[in-house]
Amino acid sequence: MILDGKRGDVGHTAERYAAEAFGRYAADAVTVNPYLGSDALEPFLRHADRGVIVLCRTSNPGAGDLQDLEVGGRRLYQVVAGLAARRWNSRGNCLLVVGATYPRELAEVRAIVGDMPLLVPGVGAQGGEVAAVVSNGQSRNGTGLIISASRAILYASSGADFAGAARSTAQALRAQINMSRRSAS
Amino acid sequence: MILDGKRGDVGHTAERYAAEAFGRYAADAVTVNPYLGSDALEPFLRHADRGVIVLCRTSNPGAGDLQDLEVGGRRLYQVVAGLAARRWNSRGNCLLVVGATYPRELAEVRAIVGDMPLLVPGVGAQGGEVAAVVSNGQSRNGTGLIISASRAILYASSGADFAGAARSTAQALRAQINMSRRSAS
Repeated sequence: MILDGKRGDVGHTAERYAAEAFGRYAADAVTVNPYLGSDALEPFLRHADRGVIVLCRTSNPGAGDLQDLEVGGRRLYQVVAGLAARRWNSRGNCLLVVGATYPRELAEVRAIVGDMPLLVPGVGAQGGEVAAVVSNGQSRNGTGLIISASRAILYASSGADFAGAARSTAQALRAQINMSRRSAS
Repeated sequence: MILDGKRGDVGHTAERYAAEAFGRYAADAVTVNPYLGSDALEPFLRHADRGVIVLCRTSNPGAGDLQDLEVGGRRLYQVVAGLAARRWNSRGNCLLVVGATYPRELAEVRAIVGDMPLLVPGVGAQGGEVAAVVSNGQSRNGTGLIISASRAILYASSGADFAGAARSTAQALRAQINMSRRSAS
């Protein structure tokens, strides 16, 4: 279970948020915000048996306001990807969020982080395309992607068939992902 | 009451977080994280009668990892201060967080944002100095600062006198702030 808490706070508070996410909620992984820097992430990362998923290039329209700013010839989200690969992943439990709505950026992040798994929101309601996500985002062995859809599945139907409709939509997305993997490999 | 939620999420989720902060918790103001960009802040900002306090230069040791990155001759936190002044404050309800532990940066932010109020954590347990905060951070009319201490007051005593000790510590801090305002004016 991934807790999409997008936490980001100073060290002593981050410690308590980590205890909340991994203890109280028993999450397998949690999303975190990198704006406060390494010491805000370390209390999560030191839980070596849990995943820590750092926001890198988010799926929303305004993502570029900060994340695309140019920092020494690179974009800020590329700097974050570099920090994740070189510094935050020392225990092998760091992942990144890259939105499905930005397939070019997904390829650029993949080139920086090697085989690190990426959480990719934004297919479905936000309009990201599965085929582009798979071809641009997969790792060398054709894996490395956690493709998530929320609203498209949650709200597949508002009628009495909501559960069956959600199941069908989820299955259709899974089939689409696997078809894209085959054609990309 | 300021809710230190440090929220930062895509628009439709941000809307619900804003409803939680201002409706459910009846907060007068809430802290938010700028990494996701303008559309993640707008659902808060459109509550024109509430304050939206954007993280700019935080008080923690690792704050500089991202916030000090150089973007076109400025630092990232200065870019955030500029966005706050020029874009996010159109309704006059935007504030910024600048840590007491970085008085030089506080003066630089003040120069960018004019009379915008600043929330300044980090005096007390984190070691920021009140005199430097006041002289570097106050606005032209000698106000514009919300100086907050948390642990120094909460944990002033672990004995039976905890309430009285917290009160004394808060009063001493207030006196120290007012003394600094007089000597700075």
